[in-house]
Amino acid sequence: MLNIKSLVVLSGGQDSTTCLYWALHKFGSNAVEAITFDYGQRHRVELDCAANVAEFAKVPHTVIPIDTFTALGGNALVDENVSIQNGAVADTELPNTFVPGRNIVFLTFAAAYAWKNNIEHLVTGVGQADYSNYPDCRQKTIEALQSTIRLGMESNVVIHTPLMSLSKKQIVVLARDLGALDVMVLTHTCYKGRRPPCGKCAACELRAKGFDEAGIQDPLLAIKA
Amino acid sequence: MLNIKSLVVLSGGQDSTTCLYWALHKFGSNAVEAITFDYGQRHRVELDCAANVAEFAKVPHTVIPIDTFTALGGNALVDENVSIQNGAVADTELPNTFVPGRNIVFLTFAAAYAWKNNIEHLVTGVGQADYSNYPDCRQKTIEALQSTIRLGMESNVVIHTPLMSLSKKQIVVLARDLGALDVMVLTHTCYKGRRPPCGKCAACELRAKGFDEAGIQDPLLAIKA
Repeated sequence: MLNIKSLVVLSGGQDSTTCLYWALHKFGSNAVEAITFDYGQRHRVELDCAANVAEFAKVPHTVIPIDTFTALGGNALVDENVSIQNGAVADTELPNTFVPGRNIVFLTFAAAYAWKNNIEHLVTGVGQADYSNYPDCRQKTIEALQSTIRLGMESNVVIHTPLMSLSKKQIVVLARDLGALDVMVLTHTCYKGRRPPCGKCAACELRAKGFDEAGIQDPLLAIKA
Repeated sequence: MLNIKSLVVLSGGQDSTTCLYWALHKFGSNAVEAITFDYGQRHRVELDCAANVAEFAKVPHTVIPIDTFTALGGNALVDENVSIQNGAVADTELPNTFVPGRNIVFLTFAAAYAWKNNIEHLVTGVGQADYSNYPDCRQKTIEALQSTIRLGMESNVVIHTPLMSLSKKQIVVLARDLGALDVMVLTHTCYKGRRPPCGKCAACELRAKGFDEAGIQDPLLAIKA
């Protein structure tokens, strides 16, 4: 029997939700699981969103804790003493929302879960277009990590990054084509944890840009405060 | 100013303790820190040993929690429902003490700590000679991981593996040459968590083999039950 099982790293945001629907389309509705990491994110609403998205998509969902980033401290996504930068940052600068090693760790733990559960395909929503300059979202990093995991776990894991080269506009169009617009009302993007979103942080700005350029209304903006 | 600061991943065992003394020798007594991961190891004595070794060596020591492996479950080093295999395993088989991703995660978190603290050199006691067949201890895995971390954190981190190609005998000789025999009484190796060691598990057998072949008495065997 072919192993077509896949595991999607689901944050509860727009991109990973699009990836979940991409995986359902590619691998089939009975071959997809989702995994979410509870890593001390400042905004617990993200975890609720991930659970709601998985439930809506009828996909088994596992939440795995990671207490380590909080212990390491010192960045804006997990540390309440660091404020979030608004807007985009210079190309040569790492934003203060950078959590060093975050995606390396997420994908390694996802691969460990996959290893134990005989799952060969990992899917992650990282990308290098239109992003906040995170080096662990780039194609070269993911390729190096796939090599590392294959060697380190003696596995044939494949890391799929369907959004790698897509602009935010193209991601919105992809979501529409996959029938994943309705579910977007359940997703979370705002760095400030607001629902409805703040509309001003870098993440809100990127999301709005994508929907605007695609000429599609973001269902999330229809919800009332 | 040259950045010669280094961070040793210290488990409290014979190998990482030898690495700590290797780093003190290479980088100087004021340029070494140690980091230990509290990842739910069955035998908390390992954490005590790491702290005792660091104190004995007069090296700053940080303990960082990782609750994720326990949540992922299902292997003999963190799961009390899985019993430890005795002796060596076949070359083609992974031992049930294998924790998938363990060293990848340890070194990535160590690199994150190093990134925050402007430390460029990581030192780890992994090796591919005389070992329990762990694929994440091999040279090729470590090389791939170093590439991954450099790309993913935009760093120049160097991962040093001074024991990579050494036999257990050679590690004991190295420890002697570095003046690290006395400290060995503080270390822990036994998979079964016993002190004095059980003498029968794969880890105890490997340690005894190394000291025997080096013709050196293991200080740990002199302690009384």
